[in-house]
Amino acid sequence: MARNWFRLDEFSGNMVSMKHPLPAGIIPYLPTPVTSSGTLDNNALHRLVDALAEAGVSGLSPLGSTGELPSISDAVADDVVENVVDYAGELPVVPGVLSGTTTNAATRVATITALGASGIVAMIRPWGKVSQASMTEYFNAMATATDLPLVLYRQPSLGAQPDLNTLIELSKVPNIYALKDASPNTGFLMSLTTAGSELELYSASSHVQMLVWELGGRGWMGGPCCIAPRSSVAMWNYYQAGDRDSAWRLQRGLWPLCRAFAAFGPAPMVKGGLALTGLDVGTPFAPLESLNSSQVQTVRDAIDAARQARADLGLDTAVL
Amino acid sequence: MARNWFRLDEFSGNMVSMKHPLPAGIIPYLPTPVTSSGTLDNNALHRLVDALAEAGVSGLSPLGSTGELPSISDAVADDVVENVVDYAGELPVVPGVLSGTTTNAATRVATITALGASGIVAMIRPWGKVSQASMTEYFNAMATATDLPLVLYRQPSLGAQPDLNTLIELSKVPNIYALKDASPNTGFLMSLTTAGSELELYSASSHVQMLVWELGGRGWMGGPCCIAPRSSVAMWNYYQAGDRDSAWRLQRGLWPLCRAFAAFGPAPMVKGGLALTGLDVGTPFAPLESLNSSQVQTVRDAIDAARQARADLGLDTAVL
Amino acid sequence: MARNWFRLDEFSGNMVSMKHPLPAGIIPYLPTPVTSSGTLDNNALHRLVDALAEAGVSGLSPLGSTGELPSISDAVADDVVENVVDYAGELPVVPGVLSGTTTNAATRVATITALGASGIVAMIRPWGKVSQASMTEYFNAMATATDLPLVLYRQPSLGAQPDLNTLIELSKVPNIYALKDASPNTGFLMSLTTAGSELELYSASSHVQMLVWELGGRGWMGGPCCIAPRSSVAMWNYYQAGDRDSAWRLQRGLWPLCRAFAAFGPAPMVKGGLALTGLDVGTPFAPLESLNSSQVQTVRDAIDAARQARADLGLDTAVL
Amino acid sequence: MARNWFRLDEFSGNMVSMKHPLPAGIIPYLPTPVTSSGTLDNNALHRLVDALAEAGVSGLSPLGSTGELPSISDAVADDVVENVVDYAGELPVVPGVLSGTTTNAATRVATITALGASGIVAMIRPWGKVSQASMTEYFNAMATATDLPLVLYRQPSLGAQPDLNTLIELSKVPNIYALKDASPNTGFLMSLTTAGSELELYSASSHVQMLVWELGGRGWMGGPCCIAPRSSVAMWNYYQAGDRDSAWRLQRGLWPLCRAFAAFGPAPMVKGGLALTGLDVGTPFAPLESLNSSQVQTVRDAIDAARQARADLGLDTAVL
Repeated sequence: MARNWFRLDEFSGNMVSMKHPLPAGIIPYLPTPVTSSGTLDNNALHRLVDALAEAGVSGLSPLGSTGELPSISDAVADDVVENVVDYAGELPVVPGVLSGTTTNAATRVATITALGASGIVAMIRPWGKVSQASMTEYFNAMATATDLPLVLYRQPSLGAQPDLNTLIELSKVPNIYALKDASPNTGFLMSLTTAGSELELYSASSHVQMLVWELGGRGWMGGPCCIAPRSSVAMWNYYQAGDRDSAWRLQRGLWPLCRAFAAFGPAPMVKGGLALTGLDVGTPFAPLESLNSSQVQTVRDAIDAARQARADLGLDTAVL
Repeated sequence: MARNWFRLDEFSGNMVSMKHPLPAGIIPYLPTPVTSSGTLDNNALHRLVDALAEAGVSGLSPLGSTGELPSISDAVADDVVENVVDYAGELPVVPGVLSGTTTNAATRVATITALGASGIVAMIRPWGKVSQASMTEYFNAMATATDLPLVLYRQPSLGAQPDLNTLIELSKVPNIYALKDASPNTGFLMSLTTAGSELELYSASSHVQMLVWELGGRGWMGGPCCIAPRSSVAMWNYYQAGDRDSAWRLQRGLWPLCRAFAAFGPAPMVKGGLALTGLDVGTPFAPLESLNSSQVQTVRDAIDAARQARADLGLDTAVL
Repeated sequence: MARNWFRLDEFSGNMVSMKHPLPAGIIPYLPTPVTSSGTLDNNALHRLVDALAEAGVSGLSPLGSTGELPSISDAVADDVVENVVDYAGELPVVPGVLSGTTTNAATRVATITALGASGIVAMIRPWGKVSQASMTEYFNAMATATDLPLVLYRQPSLGAQPDLNTLIELSKVPNIYALKDASPNTGFLMSLTTAGSELELYSASSHVQMLVWELGGRGWMGGPCCIAPRSSVAMWNYYQAGDRDSAWRLQRGLWPLCRAFAAFGPAPMVKGGLALTGLDVGTPFAPLESLNSSQVQTVRDAIDAARQARADLGLDTAVL
Repeated sequence: MARNWFRLDEFSGNMVSMKHPLPAGIIPYLPTPVTSSGTLDNNALHRLVDALAEAGVSGLSPLGSTGELPSISDAVADDVVENVVDYAGELPVVPGVLSGTTTNAATRVATITALGASGIVAMIRPWGKVSQASMTEYFNAMATATDLPLVLYRQPSLGAQPDLNTLIELSKVPNIYALKDASPNTGFLMSLTTAGSELELYSASSHVQMLVWELGGRGWMGGPCCIAPRSSVAMWNYYQAGDRDSAWRLQRGLWPLCRAFAAFGPAPMVKGGLALTGLDVGTPFAPLESLNSSQVQTVRDAIDAARQARADLGLDTAVL
């Protein structure tokens, strides 16, 4: 994948990097598989990447909430990226970078860039009172540390996040490419697009994906699509093809997975859900807990709903 | 309008009232006009009702947040309903009832029913810790007190509200007809519909209206459509006719009014916005304040955005 | 009790009303007793007032949270005040006034004043976005409507409340006399007193009463002291007499009642607790519920703790 | 300082470690000084430790919120502890350990123990949904990893924290020694002590220190006492000596520093305040910002208030 796009700046006469696209479609968040001894389980990671690639996803995003980024060391994080890039082949890899300090965030972006990523999901986990001006500098520092396109990830559960005006300002930065908003407030995305934001949009799992697509969204970056990648890809393809009825049937079938994801938390739900589909990627890092039996049943029901939607559309129900 | 629909109950052999529809389309929330001496301004109310009726709205909803229901006495509330029913002619009137006690809520529903309403917007402003079971009884008591269809109004800013399971349970009550959800969480509506709710949906102003319609919603009950009723009606008509492009153009043009509504509060924004369109309905009840000059400018810009969308579509820009 | 205190204003040469004290000590919040048919139970009210007067409390405060003020009509509220003033004899009565509009708040204060109250607990239940300036006007309007001393009641669960600067400004108003703060933030009271507030302080039940007294507080206005009035009065008397050890013993014994009050809500807990001491004042207004059996046990244990503290001090354990 | 206390376990016949005390009194939180190039400024750290030791504090606590622990690497954190232990001489050093995973928390405790600490301030910054049972395991793992006494630090701004029952359960662990609660809810401490907790209490800066001492607290662990160490020590000494009037005078003089600490955040306020007293420890880590000029003035006023209290008591006003 071409990593550097340039355009001629008419004032300076210089070539400057410009926004270049990340792929549209389904980009699953990867859980971080661990063995029972607590170390990275590369075999499981490999199997997961293969399964997703086969399902037709457009990219892979390790090291997000689903990947338990706050729970793993930088060394393990780097190891994850190196291996995912290796296993992914031509598939773009868009890892997350999460920090609380501007300097560290920029350093991590540079490291991840050097490991062969195709883009970065940029997050802030502020500690203390951070002004919007300071937050702008934080994301600018990340953008400056790489030529890759950045996907801003607005996640209110991480603390204060960039507000509407900050996002609009950041959208003018050439390689700040897109936004993934993990709030449940779909109208906020409408506010952004009607107030001058130039950010592309990926749906998070907290929004009804197809509604974000109605607003111009390019796809879905999420944990639940890890569990049902073929159905997620099919939903996107139906939608792109203008077959809204089929797309809605899948959307309704996939929504219970999104509800369980919100209710039980990213890592417990995705790790638990993958186990139900036969892909063992280990348990979450303590103090997070594996799903309890009632939660397992809820996820099993959600999987059944997705499978029923496939059946209704005549799709292969042996896979998800 | 027929107020009572019945079906034959197969077990009891009795005729029981059944869900009967409230109209689809645009149902503006009415502000409560007051004179400078603080009494109800019936002339302004009459002018407002006439203007909305002429604009083609499907119904009128006095006594909501926009109507400052918590700030007026029962006597004034009754006066408002009587007059709106009188001025509205054939147009259905769906007033709000808001209370904190079950007994009072039921009494008020009966009173409003007797005044000639066509439906009731049912709200709870809980005081203290109210269980979901108790909340179910509250709304059941309202439903029992009338044959009119109820629109449940879930408004988190009023305190604890019915949750997903409570709403699904209430949706089985024959004359609990629809939900208007004032949270910004559009996915919650998707959760409802995929989890067995039988409630019809009206969009509130906190959701992108057309996205709620994508989920099956029947219209928009809101304050901002009071200010731009023709554009709101046209958006609905385009959407119904399958002309999404035109509908989206109006939706984008109307959204800044929804943002201002959320930012400045229902009564100050709607009263201030109507004044800008030439309809003086007085000022909000203190301690609420009229819009300050910066807020007026924001609303003026929002009105311009709506007007621009009309111009883009070749609609008359002398009206909104 | 003298209701009007005056001082000579040196600039105007007029006599103006000045701050005059409400009594120090224990001022219980009264629940509103209802019969099984839902009407005011004057007999129960009379028995309650007599029991509290006999226990040596310094005043009575009907129509607060414990009194379910938001759940009763103005007519019932007036009836409560008239009767409590009648039964109370020389004991000062300090009813609550709660509103959402400035005009209504002032009207209610005037009405309650005319009914023979000795002071007013002034509350705001804002609806919508209320600025601090507007809130200042709200309380000023209450103060202007009466010559009685006002106790500001800051209750965050009612919505936006006066902030530190607003309270300091209001403390300069002659008949705005004291503050009762229902937040759990004891340091906020320290901030007030070190930043120039002239308000006297009464402890609420959310603070450790004796710690508020360490900050200069004059007593306790609360619901739990309705259940254990003699112990509350004894705690205050020990503290005033400098016998901290005995006062702390009672404070520790009374604290579980305060915890249950916070956990189960004012009206359910006080009505339930009084029933356990033999004083039946009915049940809370639906949708509030009576204590369930596990909550009853918690309150019973709390009563036992209070009784044990009395035993430790050699006080009569037949009463509370 | 003796690091290991033992008692004979009557069942096993083994010697097991038991609770042994951390010192009572003032234990300032240390900021982490950085040079303009962003590296640890050991000279400033040395000067700070010397100044505090001279002022008579009872211990030193690096690596808390004031120390910007979430913003520095483990390597820098270790460096801080090594140096503070070195500079501190006999003065006990009680560093903070903050993590989001159980395994890492235990590892860090072991490391800090090996570096010569006298105790550990144990914190959790949960990521995701952590049950109270899981949180108990988290803190148990920390306790098991060391023989040092642990001070649990409950800080709601870090996310879900141990609740009352969890704290009571943890209080039974031999080397879980004390609690420092950073909520503003002083009554919560009363609830703990009356519900069976065996934890000693240190006041945080969010509580009025002397009120926590009234509840049996052993001192103050805080950021503001870094700026006014002599006044803090004097307040504690007056209190211990039974001279409440003098202690309260200092308490009132020190409170504005606590308010500024809450308002502006630990690191910006302590670093800014120390600069005003002539101790340059650098600026906070971006995206945190240094105090702006209005904030500097507020801190300057707070310092003046502390100095005035010293003057009132005849204490040397050349120091704080």
